[in-house]
Amino acid sequence: MDERAALALLARELEFAGDDAAIIDGLVITTDMLHDRTDFPDGTTRYTAGWRAVGASLSDVAAMGAEATAAVAAYAAPEFDPEELLGFVRGARDVCERVDAKYVGGDLDGHDEFTVTTTAIGHTDDPVPRSGARAGDLVCVTGTLGRSAAALEFFERGDDAALDRANELFRFEPRVAAGRALAPHATAMMDSSDGLARSLHQLADASDCGFAIESDPVPIADALLEVAADDDVLERATTFGEDFELVVTLPESALEAVQAAIGVDLTVLGHATAADHGITLDGEPLADQGFTHGG
Amino acid sequence: MDERAALALLARELEFAGDDAAIIDGLVITTDMLHDRTDFPDGTTRYTAGWRAVGASLSDVAAMGAEATAAVAAYAAPEFDPEELLGFVRGARDVCERVDAKYVGGDLDGHDEFTVTTTAIGHTDDPVPRSGARAGDLVCVTGTLGRSAAALEFFERGDDAALDRANELFRFEPRVAAGRALAPHATAMMDSSDGLARSLHQLADASDCGFAIESDPVPIADALLEVAADDDVLERATTFGEDFELVVTLPESALEAVQAAIGVDLTVLGHATAADHGITLDGEPLADQGFTHGG
Repeated sequence: MDERAALALLARELEFAGDDAAIIDGLVITTDMLHDRTDFPDGTTRYTAGWRAVGASLSDVAAMGAEATAAVAAYAAPEFDPEELLGFVRGARDVCERVDAKYVGGDLDGHDEFTVTTTAIGHTDDPVPRSGARAGDLVCVTGTLGRSAAALEFFERGDDAALDRANELFRFEPRVAAGRALAPHATAMMDSSDGLARSLHQLADASDCGFAIESDPVPIADALLEVAADDDVLERATTFGEDFELVVTLPESALEAVQAAIGVDLTVLGHATAADHGITLDGEPLADQGFTHGG
Repeated sequence: MDERAALALLARELEFAGDDAAIIDGLVITTDMLHDRTDFPDGTTRYTAGWRAVGASLSDVAAMGAEATAAVAAYAAPEFDPEELLGFVRGARDVCERVDAKYVGGDLDGHDEFTVTTTAIGHTDDPVPRSGARAGDLVCVTGTLGRSAAALEFFERGDDAALDRANELFRFEPRVAAGRALAPHATAMMDSSDGLARSLHQLADASDCGFAIESDPVPIADALLEVAADDDVLERATTFGEDFELVVTLPESALEAVQAAIGVDLTVLGHATAADHGITLDGEPLADQGFTHGG
């Protein structure tokens, strides 16, 4: 049974909403496990790992349109090297500071493989679900896509300068403030951690709609343009994922107000359609293809 | 660097309170990672694993004197077997129900070793620290000690009846209601997850006091009496740990009111002393010996 089938099984058992985070009485909770083999390429510093792991959970809070309150992490490694441990904690603390949340510690554990589980807590009285997109809504994305895809190229190069660049690209800005600005207007929202294509499929499934988007406006990260072949850029930007941007639908009438308030680029990619349209890029079907976590 | 040294390093870096859980604006958060090699003996069912892992985090909430709100878990395994996964989730949900908390799901991840990280959330406006014990306070423990030590014996026997018994002993009752009843009177509190002896040392360190306890009243679990040699019972009950009972100090004047309200046995073991007395059992020094997690 693969991860997606297992998630579907659990959704039936637990009556999950299937959103980025669980909500109970306005309290937002989300947890993620990351580990060496699948999530941290060789050359990832522990500072970057702490930032990225905690950032991934904060991104789930952002995707609900919630404010972020606090985060904790369980840190497991074959040995506890003081410098690595402090690096991790400082990365975790710094990413929390960026979104006005507190990093309040966690647990240590001995483990054969470097493994971290992060949990973020937030609050909102008015969460944005994945299920509210309606035909005619605009579909937009924050920031740029392809940072993480580019980072992998730099990790593979492996020299010091490339590793610095890779680590910098891996430390993304969780879109908590953007999520707060979007929340009053957004009809559906999630983060792009599995890639734009898969995010659109997930929003379409939850909202019972389709999407028609264009390739021209897709905001590509400069770093990806730098490392990827021209004919490869768009696919990698739309399917690689792990960029932790927000994919959001909203009525066209709200666009101007949102863009004035959001504090980050918000790019209109196209619009939501009736479900029978399916999901298209430049009029062609866009496959449900992307990053499967924890594989 | 071992786990205790690493925790001390982090305490300096993060200015942790060093309590069982972090608190921010009345919100209680605690996270724990458990895994196959160190925490789940052969024969532990996934139902028991779910119960016990989530229960361990709920026990940390209880140790703050807080009410428990919700729990999440990240579940990682080499493969997702539907029966195992549902077993885990049902155990997690059932232990939450016991303490009026909601199990709200979590994350799935592929991993070489079965590994779970649980996070529990609670609330209290008046947390009980580890640092408030004063000379003259009574020191007490809830329930009985030695259930988990006994469970290990049954796991080792390995026949079906023994494994059933072991699993039952491993599914403990998180002392959330007891913690709530103790909170208005307790001067210091923590859970006994590292064993009674180590808990007393930790409370003494945090409170700058000593403890004089007697062996006679130590409440031994029937199951441990059944499996352990007479001359071994007391040491195992006081050092094995993993029983998730509450170790608490309170003024003698509060004892009667607490015992009427607590709904579980609360045994007086002795009293807190000045720090220079150290920690004694029947007048002899009690070593800081116990279970080190995640070793």
